[in-house]
Formats: sequence, C-alpha cells, structure tokens
Amino acid sequence: MNNSPIQRLVELLSRLPGVGDRTALRHVFSILEDDPAYAAALAVSLGELHEKVRRCVRCGNYDAQDECHICRDPNRDARLLCLVARVPDLMAVERAGSFRGRYHVVHGLLAPLEGMGPEKLPLAGLIQRIQEDAVQEVVVATPLSVEGEATALYVAQGLRSTGVRVSRIASGVPHGGELEFTDQVTLGRAFEGRRALE
Amino acid sequence: MNNSPIQRLVELLSRLPGVGDRTALRHVFSILEDDPAYAAALAVSLGELHEKVRRCVRCGNYDAQDECHICRDPNRDARLLCLVARVPDLMAVERAGSFRGRYHVVHGLLAPLEGMGPEKLPLAGLIQRIQEDAVQEVVVATPLSVEGEATALYVAQGLRSTGVRVSRIASGVPHGGELEFTDQVTLGRAFEGRRALE
Repeated sequence: MNNSPIQRLVELLSRLPGVGDRTALRHVFSILEDDPAYAAALAVSLGELHEKVRRCVRCGNYDAQDECHICRDPNRDARLLCLVARVPDLMAVERAGSFRGRYHVVHGLLAPLEGMGPEKLPLAGLIQRIQEDAVQEVVVATPLSVEGEATALYVAQGLRSTGVRVSRIASGVPHGGELEFTDQVTLGRAFEGRRALE
Repeated sequence: MNNSPIQRLVELLSRLPGVGDRTALRHVFSILEDDPAYAAALAVSLGELHEKVRRCVRCGNYDAQDECHICRDPNRDARLLCLVARVPDLMAVERAGSFRGRYHVVHGLLAPLEGMGPEKLPLAGLIQRIQEDAVQEVVVATPLSVEGEATALYVAQGLRSTGVRVSRIASGVPHGGELEFTDQVTLGRAFEGRRALE
C-alpha cells in the first residue's frame, strides 16, 4: 500500500485493545465505504471525548459532569463504598445490580515492576471522604489477581488509621462452575471461604 | 451510564464491522485512559480520511493521489486487468504476488434484493479502458459466492461487444484442504475444473 493516510489510521486504530493491523484495515475500509458524515461524526466525537468526559471529583467515575450521576443520586448510601480499580469494573458491579452504596475508583492497581508504586495510588482523597461522609465500610472489589490482591492489602493497611471496616469481595467457584474444571487456587479459596449452611 | 459523550462514541464505534457495544465501550475506556493526544490524532486522521484518500480515476483503488500507485507503475502490464469487487480483494491478490497486470475495482456485487442492480455497477469506464489500453484479458476475481458468480456473468455479458477475453479465477479445493471436509459444491467445481496432468 502506498496510501499513507490509510496506513496512519491503521497504526492509530491498532493501538486499541484487541485490534490488530488486519482488523484496523477492515475498519478503515468500512469507514471509507461508508458515508463521509460517519467519519466526520466519529472525528468530532473523539475530539470532544477528553474535553467532555471528566473524572468525578468525588469518586473518579467518568461522567459529563464534575460529580457523577451515582455521587449525585441521593438514594445511594454514602456510608458504604465499593473500591474498584477501573471504571469498567464499576460498571460490572452496577450491572450486577445488588450494590446500593457509592464507589471509589483508584484508576490502577499496584504493580511496582510496571512503575505502579503506592505513590500512584494515593489514598488521601479516600480517607478524607471516609471522614466527611462517615463511611462505615469499604468493600474492596479489585480483581482477584496478584496485583488486585496486593492492592487490596495496601488499601486495608492505608485505611487502618480511619477505623473504617474494610472488606474484600468473596473468591470461589463461579456461578454454574464445575468443580472438575475449576483451578486449584479457586478451589482452595472456595474451601477457605466456606460458610455454614443454616 | 449517564455519560452521553461516551454513549455517543460507543454508538458510532459499534457501526464498525465486528464491533459490538461491549467492544466499543472497551475502546472508549482505552481511549479515555490513554494520552489525550491519541484521541486527538485519531480524530484528525479520521477527519482527513475521506478528503485525503480518493478512488483512483482509472481503476477505483484507494490512494492518496488521483491515479493509484499500481496504475502509475510502468512495470505493470496494462493489457491484463483483474476485476475485483472491493479494494481488500485487490490487496489479497497483491499479497499473493503472482498477478502482474492492473486492476479494476467495481466497488460492489450484483445483489438486486439489496438494491444493487446492474445500474450500480456501470461497465462504461471499464469498456473505455479496454479500448484505450488495448486490454487483452480481464480476469474476473469476484468472490465464489452467488453474488460473485452473478456479477462475473454480468461482466462477461457486458464486455462481449469489446471482443476482450474474459476469464474467471479457478474454483476448487483450497491449498492444504482435506477432501473429507470439503463441501459438495467445491468438490463438484474441483472435478469440473480438472486439468490434464502432463
């Protein structure tokens, strides 16, 4: 191909997660064959994204306003916080539909080898929030990975001085999961976390 | 989600082939977490795409110039044309590397039920090209689908008056293909198209 504008867009698109050169090229051809108004709308929408979408000043969720719709909702319990690593995790918890508190998004996980040390995950804002809103419990819903567990421990330690209750989401065999196909670590956790059948 | 700029971009991105709402949302978050300069570069690149990339005035290929790099290449045989439905097909033939003629992209296939009647695939430009360049053969490399075959027949009929030789790419068992797993139509075509072993 001698078409530098196509190559340039392919390079940019292939930076998106799960998009390789071939998928990016398919996208470019699809955009070329589509109405030019579509490419224009996409360009405008992308150009405005960072300007129009901001992090909620209270919880770090993305929203078009300074305070996100969850923090503005008076029906959500301000004394119960769910700490998540990223906004997609917040959305997954929202989809599950059982959590009625508010969130705190730390936008990352501890990963010292990748340059994510504790200084990149400051807890000062969270501690202030715990005090201002008289928060009673922080449910740490970081992933059940090495980084997620390390972050959970770091958060628990960092919040110790506030006296708030810090809990961790349960780990175990997922809904519908077959024991035969469950990995050892998960099974081990499922046994550790067993609960009395009443 | 109450974030209309995010929703808007998700809707636009999910118009791309193979991109659903969830993938689009992953892309949006990836763009939000990335450097704002990335979104800006993507916006500029998309905004310029239709303006900077045009269809070659001779063959219909995409290029940054009025005449594409293949039509400009004096080493390509102007008397041998390969007719393809879309530019990605042209690129596939180029990757195969054995075709040294030039192309003609018709940008579509006959599909009367979807509104693609013969009037959407005008052959006048091709006929003019055949006469001007003294083309000797047109290899029809439309897909081996119903629409591709119908288009091939339509092209052969439409070019009859020019006296040019019209050929069709071979259909048969693909390279490495097992007969056991080859469908009946393909096997039938492979037998029809059998060639003498010298």
